[in-house]
Amino acid sequence: MFLSTLFTRTSKEIVKDEPSINAQYLIRGWFVHKVMAWCYTFLPLGLKVLTKIENIIRRHMNRIGTEIAMTALAPMDLWKQTNRLDKVDVLMKTSGANPKAIAKCDNEYILNPTHEELVTPLVWQWIKSYKDLPVAVYQFQTKFRNEARAKSWLLRGREFRMKDLYSFHRDKADLMQYYERVKAVYMDTFRELWLGDDTIITLASGGDFTDEYSHEFQTILPIGEDTLFIGQDKSFAYNKEVAPSHAPTYQDPHEVMKPFESVYGENIVSVQRLCDFFNIPAWKTVKTMLYMADNHPVACSLRGDYEINDLKLKKILGCKKLRLMTEEEILTHTGAQIWYAGPIGLRSQIKFFADESIASLINFECWINQTNYHAINVNRDRDIPRPAQFYDFKEAQEGDIEPASWVVYEVKPGCEIGNIFPLETKFSNACGLSYMDENNQRQEVMMGCYGIGPSRIMGVLVEKYHDDKGIKRPVNVAPFTAMIVPATPDSFDEAQKEYLTRLAAGDDVCFDDRDIRFGEKMADWELWGIPEVVIYGKKWREVKMR
Amino acid sequence: MFLSTLFTRTSKEIVKDEPSINAQYLIRGWFVHKVMAWCYTFLPLGLKVLTKIENIIRRHMNRIGTEIAMTALAPMDLWKQTNRLDKVDVLMKTSGANPKAIAKCDNEYILNPTHEELVTPLVWQWIKSYKDLPVAVYQFQTKFRNEARAKSWLLRGREFRMKDLYSFHRDKADLMQYYERVKAVYMDTFRELWLGDDTIITLASGGDFTDEYSHEFQTILPIGEDTLFIGQDKSFAYNKEVAPSHAPTYQDPHEVMKPFESVYGENIVSVQRLCDFFNIPAWKTVKTMLYMADNHPVACSLRGDYEINDLKLKKILGCKKLRLMTEEEILTHTGAQIWYAGPIGLRSQIKFFADESIASLINFECWINQTNYHAINVNRDRDIPRPAQFYDFKEAQEGDIEPASWVVYEVKPGCEIGNIFPLETKFSNACGLSYMDENNQRQEVMMGCYGIGPSRIMGVLVEKYHDDKGIKRPVNVAPFTAMIVPATPDSFDEAQKEYLTRLAAGDDVCFDDRDIRFGEKMADWELWGIPEVVIYGKKWREVKMR
Repeated sequence: MFLSTLFTRTSKEIVKDEPSINAQYLIRGWFVHKVMAWCYTFLPLGLKVLTKIENIIRRHMNRIGTEIAMTALAPMDLWKQTNRLDKVDVLMKTSGANPKAIAKCDNEYILNPTHEELVTPLVWQWIKSYKDLPVAVYQFQTKFRNEARAKSWLLRGREFRMKDLYSFHRDKADLMQYYERVKAVYMDTFRELWLGDDTIITLASGGDFTDEYSHEFQTILPIGEDTLFIGQDKSFAYNKEVAPSHAPTYQDPHEVMKPFESVYGENIVSVQRLCDFFNIPAWKTVKTMLYMADNHPVACSLRGDYEINDLKLKKILGCKKLRLMTEEEILTHTGAQIWYAGPIGLRSQIKFFADESIASLINFECWINQTNYHAINVNRDRDIPRPAQFYDFKEAQEGDIEPASWVVYEVKPGCEIGNIFPLETKFSNACGLSYMDENNQRQEVMMGCYGIGPSRIMGVLVEKYHDDKGIKRPVNVAPFTAMIVPATPDSFDEAQKEYLTRLAAGDDVCFDDRDIRFGEKMADWELWGIPEVVIYGKKWREVKMR
Repeated sequence: MFLSTLFTRTSKEIVKDEPSINAQYLIRGWFVHKVMAWCYTFLPLGLKVLTKIENIIRRHMNRIGTEIAMTALAPMDLWKQTNRLDKVDVLMKTSGANPKAIAKCDNEYILNPTHEELVTPLVWQWIKSYKDLPVAVYQFQTKFRNEARAKSWLLRGREFRMKDLYSFHRDKADLMQYYERVKAVYMDTFRELWLGDDTIITLASGGDFTDEYSHEFQTILPIGEDTLFIGQDKSFAYNKEVAPSHAPTYQDPHEVMKPFESVYGENIVSVQRLCDFFNIPAWKTVKTMLYMADNHPVACSLRGDYEINDLKLKKILGCKKLRLMTEEEILTHTGAQIWYAGPIGLRSQIKFFADESIASLINFECWINQTNYHAINVNRDRDIPRPAQFYDFKEAQEGDIEPASWVVYEVKPGCEIGNIFPLETKFSNACGLSYMDENNQRQEVMMGCYGIGPSRIMGVLVEKYHDDKGIKRPVNVAPFTAMIVPATPDSFDEAQKEYLTRLAAGDDVCFDDRDIRFGEKMADWELWGIPEVVIYGKKWREVKMR
């Protein structure tokens, strides 16, 4: 390709409102053009890089599935059938944009953010019997999501590229065997994309999709939106939203029990005020939160320097709906005003749960369900009974210990470049999918779904591979493998000879025939991340590697 | 590819509500899956064919432009700027699909049916001076249109694939030179797609885009939605909507003038009733339509066996708005009730226009602006003055003569597979696009846009190449170039050897290892349109070409 004919240039101007490195370099290098927030046009070099990324992913996906291309639009009914029409908060719909269009056709359609609703009825047409299982199909597609928040990713979008794979199985064992295979193929893919070293398979919430863990492929990067709690040898991690944790203890186990005291103090209603009032550290306090769990009252105590993780608590309580009590409900259930709930003096109909963070405390502070009263030097067994069991429902924080290995977590920000979900029967049952087994019995179909974000990977690669001059791309995801440059007019023919020879050999090389200063050209190659630049002078040839 | 692992089968069932051959064969052959009317998922074989079609188009487009990928979403403002937000009746918009989504982000966006609104601001960033022109960019994209009517094309869609190219020029001469180049490259493309023979460059209305003709690439096919008036040697055609025409005359030029008569006849208010009443052919009658053209009254007479073509009439009148008069306006301007307007006795403030179809009539019938009265044996010069000029504002019909060559048109149905528009400054001015010329003067930018429909071409190819067994595809747009088949268990290894050898040589072959009856397999190959099938027996090898 002759660079002068390519719709590409560079810009030296800092891009406003885009603090991230990937946004700066990708916009300034004319890889992408910002149409509006989170909507980006791929310019020639950007489209080339994206296509290379997608082709690497495609080659690996062909090992485990067949490519199709589903529609972006779907009838509303499909989303009603799976009960997600009102639930998914990124869901967008389409309608006629003006009175003329509405008069012509007033139907509304869903613009799919994910394709379970489409792929399941499609596969329903495929499955005649157990012999047709397992089956897996995937696609590359532009997805639409009603995102609201502005974060640092150029390539988080209302509109973005996604590879989504869906698999269907006769039983859970077959699903999980395939699921493990996908994990391995995904890691192969990310290794080929030069992201293998820093990408960790991370347990995360199943979200709308499943009650079990899902697995995220998180690349460790300062700009990452997620917080990873990384286990021993980086062999696994938990997303903060689900990380189990053991609190480090600061309690001297030999501390002598002091006499219990109930102290009057008006308006001492936060852990911070309490610590100031009594001059104690937060870890010496116990706070108690009151919830309604599926309409049952519940009290949960944990160390004052932790917060409750609702996801973890819901799993422990086994409830579907969880909410904090109202002021009125607190008064009814504790006899005290809001802020004064505690483990002592709770009315018996409230079920009590204790986090393991408070298990070893001696002489701790707590509220006692009396307005304006606080207890200090509280001790278990003596002042309140020891609970039959301690739980872990706190939000993990830096310094916490991974309970299985007893090793302190490494905590890092991560960027999710892929995710996989063992959906089991959630969608297949909602869509009435089933199959006949060998004994002619109708059976449920087990399902999994698996995503990779190619456009986001383009941003991640820039975040990982750059210096202050520009992008430093791995050669297989560079816009060109090499740039051939005649530095002087009399070197044009020699340079062009190498360009044509390498082109004929299948090398994706480019010829910089632009009529601009050499220094400007060099700045462009560095910004773009051209791995190899071959410069021809009158009687010399120089190779610069980036 | 081993066919048993491909997510593909066939169906023998006739597809309901899809009368067209392409829909029947593409759905039954599992090329596409119908999600809902005009929304089709591409299954593995369909996606392969579509990709081959797109790659052929891409190769030709790279001769005249650079590939990019614009966003499907656009901010409303861009469509307001070009004044199309309320005008385009296929325009769709997006919004949050449920209360949760709207609470998260209540913005609405346009889902682009075409990309002038996006490409023009993008190119504005490119053009620094006259040196940056001309420039042309193209993309392949899924487009969205709020279509209402159900017609016979499987691949007319609310959602469909489109290749759209946009070019920008310093003056009209440069635009038109490029425009002619695109015509040639398009015809090269269609020839490679095996549609060259039957595809005619057809003059059509510029629609919303331009007041000049646009050019459509129309493939002659029985299923076509358009009517083509084809000129001499098939070297050009007009779309019916704009076809100039000369009416064939049935008038004996030697007929003797008869005495003028005014005849009373109640309720004789259509050409048909009039012909029955007077026992004359329709071509002996003259009908007159009354219009308001930009608020000026206009009367237009033409032969009774023709209808008025509003597009042609508007061009002649040079008006922007054209509408038929209301009953009240007719009474005001003619003194007679509706249905009785005629060329005789018109009030002088009405401008009168005559179609050339009535130029040679002798002893014709017409209305005379008196309720319930009709005139027969009317003759020009004697009964009414001969107009200074005759025009052509009738809708062309079969048998009409092409005015330039004086040859009778061939009339055929056509299917539009591409179109090109000389937009000139319509969008560039609306978006404020301009450039500095050599003399540092700011100049307008000339623009053209050029479309091809790859998914529609997939349907057109089936309509053109099929028999009663299935599709007969040209090899370069077949899902596979060849199918290698072991007919007996002991021929598996030999067959596989040929499969692997050809695969290694870069041939896109498939291996039919399915465990079904041979007859079923053969029916599948025929339905799919596999050009070459190589069958291996114990000691034989047979090649069947389709």
